[in-house]
Amino acid sequence: MPPTVGWIGCGVMGKSMVKNLLRGGYSVGLYSRTRSAAQSLIDLGAGWYSSPMALAMEHEIIISMVGYPADVEMVYLGEKGVFSTSPDELRCHTAIDMTTSTPSLAVQLAEAAAGLGIEVLDAPVSGGDVGAREGTLSIMVGGDPIALDRVSPIFQILGKPAILQGGHGAGQHTKMVNQTIIASTMIGICEGLVYARQSGLDPGRVLESVSGGAAGSWSLTHLAPRILAGDFDPGFYVEHFVKDLEIALAECDRMGIELRGLGLARQLYEEVVQTGGARLGTQALHGAIENLARDGRAS
Amino acid sequence: MPPTVGWIGCGVMGKSMVKNLLRGGYSVGLYSRTRSAAQSLIDLGAGWYSSPMALAMEHEIIISMVGYPADVEMVYLGEKGVFSTSPDELRCHTAIDMTTSTPSLAVQLAEAAAGLGIEVLDAPVSGGDVGAREGTLSIMVGGDPIALDRVSPIFQILGKPAILQGGHGAGQHTKMVNQTIIASTMIGICEGLVYARQSGLDPGRVLESVSGGAAGSWSLTHLAPRILAGDFDPGFYVEHFVKDLEIALAECDRMGIELRGLGLARQLYEEVVQTGGARLGTQALHGAIENLARDGRAS
Repeated sequence: MPPTVGWIGCGVMGKSMVKNLLRGGYSVGLYSRTRSAAQSLIDLGAGWYSSPMALAMEHEIIISMVGYPADVEMVYLGEKGVFSTSPDELRCHTAIDMTTSTPSLAVQLAEAAAGLGIEVLDAPVSGGDVGAREGTLSIMVGGDPIALDRVSPIFQILGKPAILQGGHGAGQHTKMVNQTIIASTMIGICEGLVYARQSGLDPGRVLESVSGGAAGSWSLTHLAPRILAGDFDPGFYVEHFVKDLEIALAECDRMGIELRGLGLARQLYEEVVQTGGARLGTQALHGAIENLARDGRAS
Repeated sequence: MPPTVGWIGCGVMGKSMVKNLLRGGYSVGLYSRTRSAAQSLIDLGAGWYSSPMALAMEHEIIISMVGYPADVEMVYLGEKGVFSTSPDELRCHTAIDMTTSTPSLAVQLAEAAAGLGIEVLDAPVSGGDVGAREGTLSIMVGGDPIALDRVSPIFQILGKPAILQGGHGAGQHTKMVNQTIIASTMIGICEGLVYARQSGLDPGRVLESVSGGAAGSWSLTHLAPRILAGDFDPGFYVEHFVKDLEIALAECDRMGIELRGLGLARQLYEEVVQTGGARLGTQALHGAIENLARDGRAS
């Protein structure tokens, strides 16, 4: 019998991931802020629980995939949170936070859970909505290797082989590396397209010349054509990316380093938010860079 | 009989490209600043000429692959340059500048050549030393489509199908788009690796997690492992990349736009030059970002 899974958070990512677990034969109980968000999964056979605590009383493994670090804190450390369960009623032995959250919170959760005999793993992912749907997420793990072994059949359903990056928080740090790389890559792509248009080139034809060479990237292949088509629908929300950049910058601050490209990216993405783009996809950076390119010269 | 080719410039790129033409059955004459630079090609059967003008008197197609726009100016417009040949002694009907140079110089060359009945194409490449050696360069062309058709058998030997991007200068503009994208992508990669090390992660293992996903790029795959191995040998020289960034920034200025990522990249690469890295490979940006990351916080 596979272990029972209590799942917290039914957003775009969470929904696809739970579907894959149900398909894989797992018994899954759910908690989310509103029951309606979980309804389609309940229809597929998932159970419904009124609090994270209630989930932890009946499931061996708890997995959270929520929005912000504050949400993570609430579902674990809050009233009726996973860790407020009394030890003799607790069934959960492993808790996995797959939210992109702060490395320090990952450490704090692990410490809070130790007294309850719960192992905590931080396991943020990359691969977006498509990766979640197709079960091809890249999973970056921080925590105890034995705990990882125990839950690796679950990770195998959700994504590619999970990679243990170190102790508690190392998964989150790795995700910050991932986002730091993407941030400046996106700046380069959007600036390249602004240059192309401004110089009178056909940007689509330019992509034919540059996509397959040294300028090539996942983002250039997947997002540049969407920009040219005027499609700014979210694969990944600007507001979530801004959260990630802020976590990364706060960590840099804590570590005593300054990364200028990362700082510039935060500033540019903040512009996207200011102009109403919080719920657009990250490729909406193009509009901000186009506007600033002109304003910058005018001022 | 294939047309005869007069080749100007025997650097790393030029040498590999000429070898491919010789292998392809072309008769090639050479000019370079010093005869010694061309010796290995002369040994393979290439001819040697004492000036660009002398080359233009005996070859139907002239191709230049030199270092800087000033070099391009000299070989075409200078004393004993290609265009100083007297019309009745001129054999050249098409001149191709494959140097990464300014779009405005490409236009200027085309205008200067018109009176001589020479068609000029700007055709910078990407793909670096490996692409030159393997004949897989990406070739971005500006100029007349009929002239391109005429020389396309040559481009087929040197690289992938050449793409006509527009009129004179459009090839150079396209190359600037390429370099603009690479510039910020490199910032992201170097910052990601600095973050990884600073946060105590194993950067090699981090690459396993991030290279195959949304952070993936040609540069991450090819240059990040070199950075981690401490290998800063040039695939592409920092000093040439700085030249390209300066051309791109000057064009932005002319077009009335400001691209902040591009400006940041120039500033960071300038740091690499200042600390003696002009003849290292572009991945040497990592050292500058690592130093500035710490200095930035200290100040």
